[in-house]
Amino acid sequence: MDFQQKCLELRKAKGGLWETALKVKVENQDDLSTVYTPGIAAPCRAIAKDPALARVLTQKRNTVAVISDGSAVLGLGNIGPQASLPVMEGKCMLLKAFADVDAMPIVLDTQDTEEIIRTIIHMAPTFGGINLEDIAAPRCFEIEARLTKALDIPVFHDDQHGTAMVALAALKNALKVVGKSKTSIKVVIAGAGAAGMATAKLWQAWGIGNIIMTDSKGIIDCDREELSDPKKAFCTYQEGTIKEALVGADVFIGLSNKPDMLDREMVRSMNPEPIIFAMANPDPEILPPEAKAGGAAIIATGRSDFPNQINNVLIFPGLFRGLLDAGITKIDTALKLRVAEGLADIVEHPTAEYIIPSAFDKNVVKVVSQAVIYQK
Amino acid sequence: MDFQQKCLELRKAKGGLWETALKVKVENQDDLSTVYTPGIAAPCRAIAKDPALARVLTQKRNTVAVISDGSAVLGLGNIGPQASLPVMEGKCMLLKAFADVDAMPIVLDTQDTEEIIRTIIHMAPTFGGINLEDIAAPRCFEIEARLTKALDIPVFHDDQHGTAMVALAALKNALKVVGKSKTSIKVVIAGAGAAGMATAKLWQAWGIGNIIMTDSKGIIDCDREELSDPKKAFCTYQEGTIKEALVGADVFIGLSNKPDMLDREMVRSMNPEPIIFAMANPDPEILPPEAKAGGAAIIATGRSDFPNQINNVLIFPGLFRGLLDAGITKIDTALKLRVAEGLADIVEHPTAEYIIPSAFDKNVVKVVSQAVIYQK
Repeated sequence: MDFQQKCLELRKAKGGLWETALKVKVENQDDLSTVYTPGIAAPCRAIAKDPALARVLTQKRNTVAVISDGSAVLGLGNIGPQASLPVMEGKCMLLKAFADVDAMPIVLDTQDTEEIIRTIIHMAPTFGGINLEDIAAPRCFEIEARLTKALDIPVFHDDQHGTAMVALAALKNALKVVGKSKTSIKVVIAGAGAAGMATAKLWQAWGIGNIIMTDSKGIIDCDREELSDPKKAFCTYQEGTIKEALVGADVFIGLSNKPDMLDREMVRSMNPEPIIFAMANPDPEILPPEAKAGGAAIIATGRSDFPNQINNVLIFPGLFRGLLDAGITKIDTALKLRVAEGLADIVEHPTAEYIIPSAFDKNVVKVVSQAVIYQK
Repeated sequence: MDFQQKCLELRKAKGGLWETALKVKVENQDDLSTVYTPGIAAPCRAIAKDPALARVLTQKRNTVAVISDGSAVLGLGNIGPQASLPVMEGKCMLLKAFADVDAMPIVLDTQDTEEIIRTIIHMAPTFGGINLEDIAAPRCFEIEARLTKALDIPVFHDDQHGTAMVALAALKNALKVVGKSKTSIKVVIAGAGAAGMATAKLWQAWGIGNIIMTDSKGIIDCDREELSDPKKAFCTYQEGTIKEALVGADVFIGLSNKPDMLDREMVRSMNPEPIIFAMANPDPEILPPEAKAGGAAIIATGRSDFPNQINNVLIFPGLFRGLLDAGITKIDTALKLRVAEGLADIVEHPTAEYIIPSAFDKNVVKVVSQAVIYQK
């Protein structure tokens, strides 16, 4: 049986991988009275008097919704809500496994921005936080911004900020290894979707001045017609292909979902000791052996079968752990930068093959959650 | 520490009583690859090709949403979504404890019928069934009817049908004890809300012809002005108080949330061997000693500290177990009657103090779920 088949069979045998559990037993009449009627009236009355007690007396304290409309799932695209359910379920499991956060997978049968916003606002009293997942750009930007404004719980679009943060952590250590400074490098980002835009923003906030954004048409030229607002913020008065953009660049980060878009010649055209983050999953923009052949000094991917796996799971469990524990309601840029730098600093002596810690490094959740909480 | 305080402290110590769990461990890189990327792509692709596989490969197969707008919570009334969360959480726990159904508590920050319907329709692909809870009448009737029509998963408003079914089971055995026939009795229902209306409908479908509905103004007289549509269906061309309605009645069922509305004199005015179901919780319409003093032959309440506790927990866990296992999408009257009769028949030799099984009787979930499945 091959790996994909094994993954199917496991889910079939178990009926999915997510389930609920009870923190106390219900085995006799006394238990029933405590857990349900008449004992249930006490917390209801208490919260009715003081709504803030919902965080003390219910699962709201530790519960996050992982919500998708199924419009931009993995590299699979717009496969709809039902088919995106395994991803949400898996994400909920990782939140529990890594950071003891209880999470509910919720998929929405609408891809209308207003309907998505309204639905999530209606559900919000249930949760201590919202993780948006696999929602296509540019819709995802407005949904996140509007929900953040409307709600008193943190809203986090992982595809944007999780990616931007974890990649920044890896970049910080990669620059250390090659001895370059953030202020003097040229970065080329391939892909101007949710992840590409958020990465450009966060990396700029970190202090990188020279970022060239590209999309399927090449460099995002400010003279292009019909440029979307998010793209306008990162356009440049240059035109050219991605190949042209790479000449003299120090860093390439692929957030394009386009396998094999890069070759060794393009890597060779970059500045000495180029850094290549090829994040398309499962098939990267360039495979590590090919990048190496072009002279890449440091190569990272989203895959576990090569060194330097850049995976959002390094961020979101500890992030929500910290947000819930501290009752933080908004995620700002300073918080994101703190988390990325904290994550990078777990690696005391970075090398070309070790710029980012493993997801199973026990320090990760602790460091990330503490970096979040520090804000207060 | 008194009981209510104990219930608060328990929830405070645990941070609510509901949590999630993992069906498989995530302890190393292989687990991570299987549970999340890249293994996650296999079930997504499979479901994208055949949406029916969501029931095979994800938690949808075994997951129910317990949804409320907080508008009619216990006897506490319209305390809003946040304060109703403990009830939803408790209900989810009972679904897991009694029938291994995974359930998500969801409370909605809207009490607008259209918004509630739309929100639930949007979320529906996530679930194998919907349990509506503590939603006020008459809004609850339209919400349930519209969702049942719109969705391909079962929708069940427990306050209506759970109550109607469990009370019918108790009634069947009570009639056996006193030797009366369903076709010749007169029933007075106090309360024309969600539970009262559903009970009137189901009991009529079971074969009881003479049902007098009363509300806070007394008998629901067809000549009354501004009668709502649901009430119109159960009006009668009589006028009078509940006291007058009870003269010559065989059965009183209180679904009024009005403690102590009945006294021994009113019980005495009923036919010989009257049956009294005083379901207001925690304070019944009449306390058992007072009803006994009036000559009641059989007395049941919603409380666990008197004999004959009529509690919806006898129904909903087994009901959803059956619905999910059989993939039933609509709950019809025949199903409800089968479940009620099946539940009654667990009690082989009913007596005045034993007309309904205990929630901890191992047969209950089995019998109820089998009665559900039998439909197919």
